Amino acid sequence: METMRWLEEGLLELLDQTGLPGTVNYLKCGDYREVATAIKNLSVRGAPAIGVAAAYGLALAAGNIEAESRDAYIDRVREAAVELAATRPTAVNLCWAVERVMRRLISTQSDDPGVLRHAVLDEAHAIRREDESGNRRMGEFGRELIPQGARILTHCNAGALATAGYGTALGVIRAARAEGKDISVFAGETRPLLQGARLTAWEMYQEGIPVTVITDNMAGYLMAKGMVDLVLVGADRITSSGDVANKIGTYSLAVLAKEHNIPFYVAAPVSTVDLSLTSGSEIQIEERDMAEVTHLAGQQIVPTGVQVWNPAFDVTPARLVAAIITERGIVRPPYPQNLKKNILTSQSEEAD
Amino acid sequence: METMRWLEEGLLELLDQTGLPGTVNYLKCGDYREVATAIKNLSVRGAPAIGVAAAYGLALAAGNIEAESRDAYIDRVREAAVELAATRPTAVNLCWAVERVMRRLISTQSDDPGVLRHAVLDEAHAIRREDESGNRRMGEFGRELIPQGARILTHCNAGALATAGYGTALGVIRAARAEGKDISVFAGETRPLLQGARLTAWEMYQEGIPVTVITDNMAGYLMAKGMVDLVLVGADRITSSGDVANKIGTYSLAVLAKEHNIPFYVAAPVSTVDLSLTSGSEIQIEERDMAEVTHLAGQQIVPTGVQVWNPAFDVTPARLVAAIITERGIVRPPYPQNLKKNILTSQSEEAD
Repeated sequence: METMRWLEEGLLELLDQTGLPGTVNYLKCGDYREVATAIKNLSVRGAPAIGVAAAYGLALAAGNIEAESRDAYIDRVREAAVELAATRPTAVNLCWAVERVMRRLISTQSDDPGVLRHAVLDEAHAIRREDESGNRRMGEFGRELIPQGARILTHCNAGALATAGYGTALGVIRAARAEGKDISVFAGETRPLLQGARLTAWEMYQEGIPVTVITDNMAGYLMAKGMVDLVLVGADRITSSGDVANKIGTYSLAVLAKEHNIPFYVAAPVSTVDLSLTSGSEIQIEERDMAEVTHLAGQQIVPTGVQVWNPAFDVTPARLVAAIITERGIVRPPYPQNLKKNILTSQSEEAD
Repeated sequence: METMRWLEEGLLELLDQTGLPGTVNYLKCGDYREVATAIKNLSVRGAPAIGVAAAYGLALAAGNIEAESRDAYIDRVREAAVELAATRPTAVNLCWAVERVMRRLISTQSDDPGVLRHAVLDEAHAIRREDESGNRRMGEFGRELIPQGARILTHCNAGALATAGYGTALGVIRAARAEGKDISVFAGETRPLLQGARLTAWEMYQEGIPVTVITDNMAGYLMAKGMVDLVLVGADRITSSGDVANKIGTYSLAVLAKEHNIPFYVAAPVSTVDLSLTSGSEIQIEERDMAEVTHLAGQQIVPTGVQVWNPAFDVTPARLVAAIITERGIVRPPYPQNLKKNILTSQSEEAD
C-alpha cells in the first residue's frame, strides 16, 4: 500500500492514515493547503513521509501559480513553503524537504513557469525516490544489528507508512527478515493515536512477520521477563550530539532498555539530523489537542473538566542510544564526531 | 460515592465501575455468584475493594443456604469461599478476606443457622469498616512523605473506588490535602482499562485536587522535565521481601523514578502483604482477555489476526521502593525485617 501517489494530471493522493487499518481511503489533494491540512491532521505522518508530502505540496503550489515574473513566481511558491514548513514543528525532515525544493527552484535559471514547475515537481520526485532507496540502504546496514531470532520492541510506526516506502526502523526489520532471520516484533500501541497498534501491527502482519501488540505501560515488564532483545525506533529530529526526538514514549523505552541492558537503536535518514542543534533541549516539542487524549473513537474517556497534557514527542539523550542507523551506515558514539562524519559523507556523495 | 452498599434485606449493591465516569449504576447482587462475576468483570476492582466485596459475597451465600447440620452449612459456605477466592489470582486481599470470614464462621460455636449467618455478615461489615478506617490511618502516616507543593504521579486507581472508602494511595493524597498542602496529581491513564483516566481523575476532580491525565508513555518525559516530585501507587500483593505486584505499568514507573531520583512509594493495607512469598517472581500474574487491548469503547484498534499480550499486573522489586505505607506506619528498607515487624504489630493489636 502506497503512502502517497502523484497523478500525472497534477494531483497528489495521500493515504488517510487516521482511518487505518479499518478504512483505506486516499485523499485527493489539488491544492497545497489540502496537503498542509493533511499533515496537521496526521492523515500523513512520520517524519520522512511528511517531508515528501510537503515537497509534493510545493509541486501543487507551483502548478497553480500564475505570476507576472520569475521573482513573483518564486515568492508565491515561497509563501506555500513557509506555510507547509509550519504545519508541524518537531520533525526536521519537513523543513529539510521544503528547503531543498526551494533551493532547486531558485537555482533553476529560467523565466518560463513551465520549466520552474517542472523543476519543483522533479525535486519532489527525487526526494521521494531517494527516501525509499535510502530506507533500503538503511535496512542493509541496519540488519547486521539484528541477531538471528531477535525479539524486537518498536514504538509508533517507523514503517512504509511513515516514509515514501519500506520504512526506517521497520525497513531494518524487513531487511533482516528478507535475509532469512527468524525475528519477531513487539509493537507498543503508542497512545494517544495508536500508530503502533493500528499501523505497525498492520504492516508487520501483512508481511508475515510475527507481531504482538502491547500497551505502552507493559514495556518494562516485558523487558524484565527477558522477552526483548533490542529496541528499534525511528526519529523525528536528531541533534548533532545524538539526542533523538521521537514519538512520546520513546524516552521511557530508552531508560527501560538501559535498566535491562538491552540495546536501544534509532533508524533515520540523514535528513533527520539537525546539525544546527547541539542539545535535545533545543528541539521544539509539539503539544497537540487535548481531545487526542480525552476521546477515543468518539468516546470520552477522561471526565469533563480534567486537565490533560499531550506532548507528541519526547527527547532521548544520546547516552541512551547504542547506535543510529542511517542510509550511510551505522553511527556509534561519540555522536558529536561520528554523526557529522556520516552526514558529510552523504553530502559529498549527493554532490557527485 | 460508595463503592458498595449492604442493604438490610440482604442485598449487596456494587457500583459498576466499568461504566464510570459516564454512567453511575449499582448492580444489585442477591447471590454470591453475581459478586464473583462482578469481580471477574472488574465491575468492582482494586485489591481492598474486591476483598470486601468477596466478604459480602460470603454473607450472601450464608444467607441463602439451607443445610441440615452445622458441618453441612459450613461446607456450603466454603464452596462459595473457594469460588470467590478464585475469581482473580493476583490480589491477595481477596483470599485474605475470604479466609478471615471463614475463620470467624468456623470459630462461631453454634448450630443455629441464624447465628452463623450473623457471624459471617458481621465479619464482612468489620472488614469493610476496618478497611476504611485503616485507609484513614494510612493517610495520616503517609502524608508526612508528601511535601508542601508536591506534584504526585499515580497510576491506576488506588482511591475510594478501589477500597471500602477513602483509598490507599489516593487516601494519602487526600490526607495531605486535608492538612492544607497545596499538592497536585498526575494520573497515568492506565491502559488497557483506563482506571487512571476514568476513576482517579474523577475522584481527584470531585475533591478539587488539581489533576492532569497523561498517557502512560508520557511518564518518563514528565519526569525528565522535572514535573514530578514523587510517585505514589497502591498494591495488589506485597511479598515478605517488599516486592510489589500492582497494575501493569507500575514497574516501568518505578524504573523511571529511579532514573530521575524521584522517590517511589507504595500505600497498601497489611492485608496486601503475603508473608508466605519471599520473591515477587512467585506472584501469579493474571493475564486477561485480549479484547481489553484490541478493542476500546466497542471499536477495534488492533488489526484482526494480530497477537496481543495482556498481563494485568507487574512486579516492582523492593530495591525500587523507597517506602511502603500501611495503616500501621511507614515501612522502610530493609523490608524483610521491617515489613514483618509492621505486620506483627498489627496482628498483636488486632488480638487486643
